[in-house]
Amino acid sequence: MADPWQECMDYAVGLARKAGEIIRGALKEEISVMTKSSPVDLVTETDQKVENFLISLIKEKYPSHSFIGEESVAAGEGSILTDNPTWIIDPIDGTTNFVHRFPFVAVSIGFVVNKKIEFGIVYSCIEDKMYTARKGKGAFCNGQKLQVSGQEDITKSLLVTELGSNRDPEAIKIILSNMERLLSIPIHGIRAVGTAAVNMCLVATGGADAYYEMGIHCWDMAGAGIIITEAGGVLLDVTGGPFDLMSRRIIAASSRAIGERIAKALQVIPLRRDDATN
Amino acid sequence: MADPWQECMDYAVGLARKAGEIIRGALKEEISVMTKSSPVDLVTETDQKVENFLISLIKEKYPSHSFIGEESVAAGEGSILTDNPTWIIDPIDGTTNFVHRFPFVAVSIGFVVNKKIEFGIVYSCIEDKMYTARKGKGAFCNGQKLQVSGQEDITKSLLVTELGSNRDPEAIKIILSNMERLLSIPIHGIRAVGTAAVNMCLVATGGADAYYEMGIHCWDMAGAGIIITEAGGVLLDVTGGPFDLMSRRIIAASSRAIGERIAKALQVIPLRRDDATN
Repeated sequence: MADPWQECMDYAVGLARKAGEIIRGALKEEISVMTKSSPVDLVTETDQKVENFLISLIKEKYPSHSFIGEESVAAGEGSILTDNPTWIIDPIDGTTNFVHRFPFVAVSIGFVVNKKIEFGIVYSCIEDKMYTARKGKGAFCNGQKLQVSGQEDITKSLLVTELGSNRDPEAIKIILSNMERLLSIPIHGIRAVGTAAVNMCLVATGGADAYYEMGIHCWDMAGAGIIITEAGGVLLDVTGGPFDLMSRRIIAASSRAIGERIAKALQVIPLRRDDATN
Repeated sequence: MADPWQECMDYAVGLARKAGEIIRGALKEEISVMTKSSPVDLVTETDQKVENFLISLIKEKYPSHSFIGEESVAAGEGSILTDNPTWIIDPIDGTTNFVHRFPFVAVSIGFVVNKKIEFGIVYSCIEDKMYTARKGKGAFCNGQKLQVSGQEDITKSLLVTELGSNRDPEAIKIILSNMERLLSIPIHGIRAVGTAAVNMCLVATGGADAYYEMGIHCWDMAGAGIIITEAGGVLLDVTGGPFDLMSRRIIAASSRAIGERIAKALQVIPLRRDDATN
């Protein structure tokens, strides 16, 4: 039987590349910045333009599919995940980087059917790195097969995470105290390139051993999530339980052992789920 | 009058490129890791091999010059800066990244005469980005002129720093509490790519607005320091006073205003100077 979703994926890879071209073009112009949930939660016209570009072209070809896009949700559309084929889109993952021209900015597309991720695309467009994964068929970057490090010893691990855009003093305290606990194990170090999707792809390449974060959204994780698992990694909740795409939290690790050890160290930040209805 | 040091710089750019080839080659082989000052302060045979390669070829051509190299100092050689022309070398800035194949690893060369940096070279060899600066002649990346952002408003700034390899609980506490104070201003965010030299070059490109760190060494700062100033940025001590290459601490900022605001937020970690004699 032919793979029913491969055609969608091929189409989406082409669109992600074109979206990356739009973003690279916008980096040469003046960038005007607006804010969303906090003075440091930024958005630009390019975020909205790229999301409209992607959703309108996908809708044209697949009119029965559903969509959850970062900017559509910000504009008031719902983000309830159904069993219908659903495109989960972050037009610019790393908007703060984009605003500053810090060179890690990704187009992220996840495709979910019956609440399972079928394929994921992360195009790190300044680096020109196209990360892709189709369920059961492996993960790739620019055609090269990816494999996580497989590291199981936390004391030999390099982690990636972010300080995030939450400026609530209590949240900042928990984020930093989680880092303190991890550093004290000790671990080799923590890196942060400023986009969840690229951080996760760095775990998929084996360059880092795990990524964790709380406060991100389904559109930050859907594309890269399957890139991690198809590269041999695991996704967990920050409690160590099963990963939940709508929970706004994740551990993406090169091995279950590392993932569970991180979960043990983390204090959880209370968050409103992506699919909360009130 | 001909520039007396341009020939040294041209020679060093060629050597840095060859050193980068050695490093890229080594990334394809198994990497065996040793530790230095702490369980997370790593060193490899490649660090030593690249430093020997650079120093032996420079010594052959300039036998009267002096050298301060990360691995030579670790092996017991002194690091007292005199007025003699001195090459300050970090063969692999970002050794932890190198060990993990996290894709930011730089060869750093600073050339200092009468205690002033005359030129600097940072070759980010996985990205193939050659950053250079000659005093009074501007800073460049792969031939393209660099300019800092010029941002003066800390609340609109993106910073780079590192958590470092010091695992002393008191030092970790100060490092994290400094981040907490900066985040609370608020700032846009903090990034960390895992090498001081590349972090500083990102400030020189305008991609980040400032870098600060305590606990690094003269070989982490000498190459990139002049790249910052030639791109229009400023170097300050973490107290806000004049920058001191041997002090193991730095603020490298796109403007004096941002640098001084960061200095105001930072609690200082006590450190043994690079040129301490007892």
